[in-house]
Amino acid sequence: MNVTARKIINDPVYGFITINQPLIFSIISHPYYQRLRRIQQTAMGQLVYPGAVHTRLHHSLGAYHLMSCAVAELRSKNIEITREEELAVKAAILLHDIGHGPFSHALEHTLVQGVHHEQLSLKIMHVMNEELNGQLSLAIRIFTNDYHKPFLHQLISGQLDVDRMDYLTRDSFYSGVSEGVIGYDRILKMLTVHEGDLMVEEKAIYSVEKFLVARRQMYWQVYLHKTVLAAEKMLVKILTRARELHTRGEKQLDTQSALDFFLGGFDGNMNIENLEKFCSLDDHDVMHAIKRWSGHTDPILSLLCRRFLNRQLYKCKIQAAPFDPAFIAEKENEVIKKFNITAAEVHYFSFTGEASNTLYQTRDEKINILFRNGEVKDISEIDNALIHQNLSAPVKKNYICTLT
Amino acid sequence: MNVTARKIINDPVYGFITINQPLIFSIISHPYYQRLRRIQQTAMGQLVYPGAVHTRLHHSLGAYHLMSCAVAELRSKNIEITREEELAVKAAILLHDIGHGPFSHALEHTLVQGVHHEQLSLKIMHVMNEELNGQLSLAIRIFTNDYHKPFLHQLISGQLDVDRMDYLTRDSFYSGVSEGVIGYDRILKMLTVHEGDLMVEEKAIYSVEKFLVARRQMYWQVYLHKTVLAAEKMLVKILTRARELHTRGEKQLDTQSALDFFLGGFDGNMNIENLEKFCSLDDHDVMHAIKRWSGHTDPILSLLCRRFLNRQLYKCKIQAAPFDPAFIAEKENEVIKKFNITAAEVHYFSFTGEASNTLYQTRDEKINILFRNGEVKDISEIDNALIHQNLSAPVKKNYICTLT
Amino acid sequence: MNVTARKIINDPVYGFITINQPLIFSIISHPYYQRLRRIQQTAMGQLVYPGAVHTRLHHSLGAYHLMSCAVAELRSKNIEITREEELAVKAAILLHDIGHGPFSHALEHTLVQGVHHEQLSLKIMHVMNEELNGQLSLAIRIFTNDYHKPFLHQLISGQLDVDRMDYLTRDSFYSGVSEGVIGYDRILKMLTVHEGDLMVEEKAIYSVEKFLVARRQMYWQVYLHKTVLAAEKMLVKILTRARELHTRGEKQLDTQSALDFFLGGFDGNMNIENLEKFCSLDDHDVMHAIKRWSGHTDPILSLLCRRFLNRQLYKCKIQAAPFDPAFIAEKENEVIKKFNITAAEVHYFSFTGEASNTLYQTRDEKINILFRNGEVKDISEIDNALIHQNLSAPVKKNYICTLT
Amino acid sequence: MNVTARKIINDPVYGFITINQPLIFSIISHPYYQRLRRIQQTAMGQLVYPGAVHTRLHHSLGAYHLMSCAVAELRSKNIEITREEELAVKAAILLHDIGHGPFSHALEHTLVQGVHHEQLSLKIMHVMNEELNGQLSLAIRIFTNDYHKPFLHQLISGQLDVDRMDYLTRDSFYSGVSEGVIGYDRILKMLTVHEGDLMVEEKAIYSVEKFLVARRQMYWQVYLHKTVLAAEKMLVKILTRARELHTRGEKQLDTQSALDFFLGGFDGNMNIENLEKFCSLDDHDVMHAIKRWSGHTDPILSLLCRRFLNRQLYKCKIQAAPFDPAFIAEKENEVIKKFNITAAEVHYFSFTGEASNTLYQTRDEKINILFRNGEVKDISEIDNALIHQNLSAPVKKNYICTLT
Repeated sequence: MNVTARKIINDPVYGFITINQPLIFSIISHPYYQRLRRIQQTAMGQLVYPGAVHTRLHHSLGAYHLMSCAVAELRSKNIEITREEELAVKAAILLHDIGHGPFSHALEHTLVQGVHHEQLSLKIMHVMNEELNGQLSLAIRIFTNDYHKPFLHQLISGQLDVDRMDYLTRDSFYSGVSEGVIGYDRILKMLTVHEGDLMVEEKAIYSVEKFLVARRQMYWQVYLHKTVLAAEKMLVKILTRARELHTRGEKQLDTQSALDFFLGGFDGNMNIENLEKFCSLDDHDVMHAIKRWSGHTDPILSLLCRRFLNRQLYKCKIQAAPFDPAFIAEKENEVIKKFNITAAEVHYFSFTGEASNTLYQTRDEKINILFRNGEVKDISEIDNALIHQNLSAPVKKNYICTLT
Repeated sequence: MNVTARKIINDPVYGFITINQPLIFSIISHPYYQRLRRIQQTAMGQLVYPGAVHTRLHHSLGAYHLMSCAVAELRSKNIEITREEELAVKAAILLHDIGHGPFSHALEHTLVQGVHHEQLSLKIMHVMNEELNGQLSLAIRIFTNDYHKPFLHQLISGQLDVDRMDYLTRDSFYSGVSEGVIGYDRILKMLTVHEGDLMVEEKAIYSVEKFLVARRQMYWQVYLHKTVLAAEKMLVKILTRARELHTRGEKQLDTQSALDFFLGGFDGNMNIENLEKFCSLDDHDVMHAIKRWSGHTDPILSLLCRRFLNRQLYKCKIQAAPFDPAFIAEKENEVIKKFNITAAEVHYFSFTGEASNTLYQTRDEKINILFRNGEVKDISEIDNALIHQNLSAPVKKNYICTLT
Repeated sequence: MNVTARKIINDPVYGFITINQPLIFSIISHPYYQRLRRIQQTAMGQLVYPGAVHTRLHHSLGAYHLMSCAVAELRSKNIEITREEELAVKAAILLHDIGHGPFSHALEHTLVQGVHHEQLSLKIMHVMNEELNGQLSLAIRIFTNDYHKPFLHQLISGQLDVDRMDYLTRDSFYSGVSEGVIGYDRILKMLTVHEGDLMVEEKAIYSVEKFLVARRQMYWQVYLHKTVLAAEKMLVKILTRARELHTRGEKQLDTQSALDFFLGGFDGNMNIENLEKFCSLDDHDVMHAIKRWSGHTDPILSLLCRRFLNRQLYKCKIQAAPFDPAFIAEKENEVIKKFNITAAEVHYFSFTGEASNTLYQTRDEKINILFRNGEVKDISEIDNALIHQNLSAPVKKNYICTLT
Repeated sequence: MNVTARKIINDPVYGFITINQPLIFSIISHPYYQRLRRIQQTAMGQLVYPGAVHTRLHHSLGAYHLMSCAVAELRSKNIEITREEELAVKAAILLHDIGHGPFSHALEHTLVQGVHHEQLSLKIMHVMNEELNGQLSLAIRIFTNDYHKPFLHQLISGQLDVDRMDYLTRDSFYSGVSEGVIGYDRILKMLTVHEGDLMVEEKAIYSVEKFLVARRQMYWQVYLHKTVLAAEKMLVKILTRARELHTRGEKQLDTQSALDFFLGGFDGNMNIENLEKFCSLDDHDVMHAIKRWSGHTDPILSLLCRRFLNRQLYKCKIQAAPFDPAFIAEKENEVIKKFNITAAEVHYFSFTGEASNTLYQTRDEKINILFRNGEVKDISEIDNALIHQNLSAPVKKNYICTLT
């Protein structure tokens, strides 16, 4: 390595992020990666938290930084990670979200129907791997958990992976929701590997508790905040309406971007050509479309678009119990009258749904604590656990959104 | 005031911003204000500092918060500010940047030629004032320095105004350039009014020095960073090329937004109708246009657009001395050969210019220090001043940008 | 108020603390208050967390600052607090810990036996009230909950009082234990008063949860950390031994401070004269005594002192279950053999005990949440409460300390 | 290294400090090092900045942490530092302040006359080196600049050493004086070695400027703040008076600590025996003495002590010009009258002096900037330098202290 091939990036969250390997440079300067600069990490979170305008690119750089730290920590504990593995695991984390489309999760199953973003990430990695002459092969094996050191995969995707550590840290930092701050540095210092699996040392128990509580807080305060929810549902309804009009052959919808294809011709077959189209999409296409459609002749589409742009969102109510059918019907009648729409169209103006969040799923996931005496226990099984069985069930809440 | 009319907004910079007056609510929920959500504060700063993606809306909310603090501080020193004045000065600071167009300063004189953003802010304030039945009249008088308490205007626009305090604080926060951090809270605590003018108390000398040094740092490290400069110049060149093609009647350029009008038919007359068009513009229109034009048949336009999107920018060099004409000619020949262009087109690919920054202009501006004995001195006149006459001349640097 | 009577104090935690009332100046400049500068807030916490060397004075100034914020918030919600009440509640919080002796809680029942620090605070307040010609009378009524607005007392002493808010915030800040950070600013913004009692608004639920979890974390990670516990128990044992020797008439113990009196002649009667003696004590007296005693002829006293000074502490083990009597006996035999001591002296070298912490006591204390519909619920009764009945029982842990 | 021999220490400034070498453990657990826990870093700074109560131990741990970072950065730039050199340079920085006495600089030439703290540090290192069987030999060579890689010494003691980086960072953090914050992390990233000497890369110019400006700010706002100055001068006067009384054979002064020796019998010969006495001293001895002397029969000594304890300090005035002799005489007459003292005693109650601070001494010290083209320039010689010749002369200010 020579000195000029070293770059440091300022990051308000971690201070500096160092890049010093040619492959990492190649990935970051790739147009597919640069595209992530144009996709906001928390979608409509910024309508409630004006600071939360950070991007997928920034998140993946942050996760890459934490991965560098994690590798250094594990090595200092004599856990072997070769230079090739280090490079692979860093490449994999940089690319873990490369398959996200406009507004990330908010539009995940609306825009490109039937394909999960992790599958898209994998497909794109394969395309890039060819361009990079196989330099990503090991990264792909680790990403798909097809490598004999499971802890490397767990660093990318697991209960305590660097992805979650970064997004909780970064989302709470940018939103200003201090309740979501986790002690990522302490957790990193406490990571260890036992029989091939990633664990944390006994001393990290309170940091892990805090991590899980912080996640819970971020869900209810940010990701599932009623106004954020209302905005994201409005986004979905706008695209749903556009697709409906498309089906009817409405030509005026044309937005001069690949959006036209995904709202119209796309048949679910994500071949190379379509993948390339997908990789041309970002938040700007959607926002431009909404601005354009705000003058569309379809009154439903244009109203939703105008309302969205001016932040005149659905009124949203969230509660533990399901809503009373009479109450739902009342709201539906209100919007039918107010907006002069048909019963078939009512779902654009008033609808209910379910939002859920799990503090910690004791069944499927594990955060293993390695005790000094060699014992391994799940975080929910320790003495005086804050995170216990009862809390591990998913918490479901019901919401109703109505345009007023 | 009733309790429900009180709102707090999380801000990672200041913690919480409180809104508790109906007029402030009306301004913030106005579509013209919401538009600022779609304009990035530091334009292309994010290409070097990935965290610097904060918006004009967030900046103006922040400046509003600092104004609230300043008013409270001054009142605690028995300086009279009536409730009407308080409301007016808060409204004015919220609206001080309402006239910014896409990418703020970067495109200020390119997109809408011949109109300064402060003039636009004023025009828009007048429009909103009508809608709000004159509730902004006092705000406008203070904004235009047509009010008998000059310190109120100076809080909005002066050497130590809350606008600067917020943008230095916020830009350094989001970019992670800690050298730009200022002690805004200390300066606020030290503000005072003497014979109608805004001043700072003697104890604030070091904070003011730090403020000026931080500003210098932000100029060279962020606002005029060579890569940021290269990107913003590329943006300008793209729009310049588009306008040139427009003039030739090129129809393919159409972007389905008001951009078409400002690149084509706009004659410099900012009447109500055109102002409304202007207020429909934001970053998304420009980004969508660039994405669209990256496939345009004009090779210069499409190349610049692709390069911009993929962050393959001009190579930029900055130095104190002007560049040697022979060196400039050499670079021009290189791009003519490399990109197969005419001499008339060479300025799209290689060009020079001058960037300047003034630490503190002793002639035009004043930061007055009020000493305990009643004496008033300019910051550059105090004992052992760090900020002295020599440093007050504008620092000019030359740059050359070349596509490679 | 004139300008010179306003002082701002830099505080790394809150930025600036403003003092602008003559009575507050009088309190702060009183020798009894200045004494708090010489008492460390977290006693032996600094042996594990070297940054935790902050003082009682700093904590009480911090609590005073939070009180100022709380008063401003409540007033902005139209809850009446007169200027007299404001001054009284600020004076009371400044003085709430004035009765602490050297090393605060660590020596509370060892040095001055049989008097709780809150009783001492009250006695000292009465003395100061006389000096200040009754200016503290209302403060004392509020402090003792003898005033018709209970929420004022609850701000000083309650589940969500500013005392706790400051010590959790400050102790986590100075120790660097980020898990203990609470969102004090959010809680303050959410405070309200309902039928005379202090409550928090519905929106604060997650902040309150975080507050309780953070408190739990601070207990186990700082206040009851095994090394901190070991050091504080060693301090207690040193003083216990010194008192034992005193009883035997050992004259060499003399430390030239009021310590001599409290280890010797004090009979539990805290009259004015003795109170004055108490108010001359601070950490320096204890530390000087320990340094002096480290050369004492009594081998137990001198050994404990040397070990303490050089941070060669008891080895401490903490666990949920009580220790096996056989294990305890084994440890005792070890120290008897190693240090050549009698069975009666063994408790200076090996001993067990119980440390406890309660997350939230549902029986005795209440954090009331005021819902928008006017309903009031305890934090443990809300939907999907993180803080529930099970967790509310005190958590007891057993420790064993042995000198090795 | 085994895993159990790894320890992390929470630090509010840097997050975590890692210790993982047996020699470092030996140094830290040595009684001479633990003594630094009982010496406050900024002496009387805490009388103005109540948060500034951090210790020499914490500072030296912090400098050790920055040294670890510096070594890692330099190695990543292919600058060879062997494991032995790394250990030596870390040991040396841990011990660089081991020779400080009570209240550090404040009493440096008052308590132990004629010996500089760096000489004491070296003497103590030699003593510890014997105990540690020569393990500190290389550390001592580097500390005394007797090693063929000068940059290692420059990391410990130079214009940009880790000592200064830590004390500026830590003192500004604990005092809450945000103007003193430096970008230590950026400077560390920019360190490099050229022909054996420590330099910074071109990109660090602004960070170095900020570093120098921050230092200037800390001098005038903290280290030479008029109240801090007044308190430290009072401390000096107290000890001067005690020594004077000692000379007269006053026995009542006895404080039961090594202070008695250094105020009485010490003849300037710092042999092993006396060094050991020195190493038993800390802030507690001085504070205990002052508390004791506050009841002494000498009215001057007891008055100064009482005033000091209750923070009723000299009134101090600082200005650029020397004070008018008539003004000085007036003040002296005032104290003679007020305190009924002789002319020979007047210097205990009113006196003048000179405080100085140099922003950057262009003659003696160098901060070398290594340009990309291999050129080396001093920071004061670069284009548009903020730090120029004029500012490099020492700034002297005059003070007068008077008891009122």
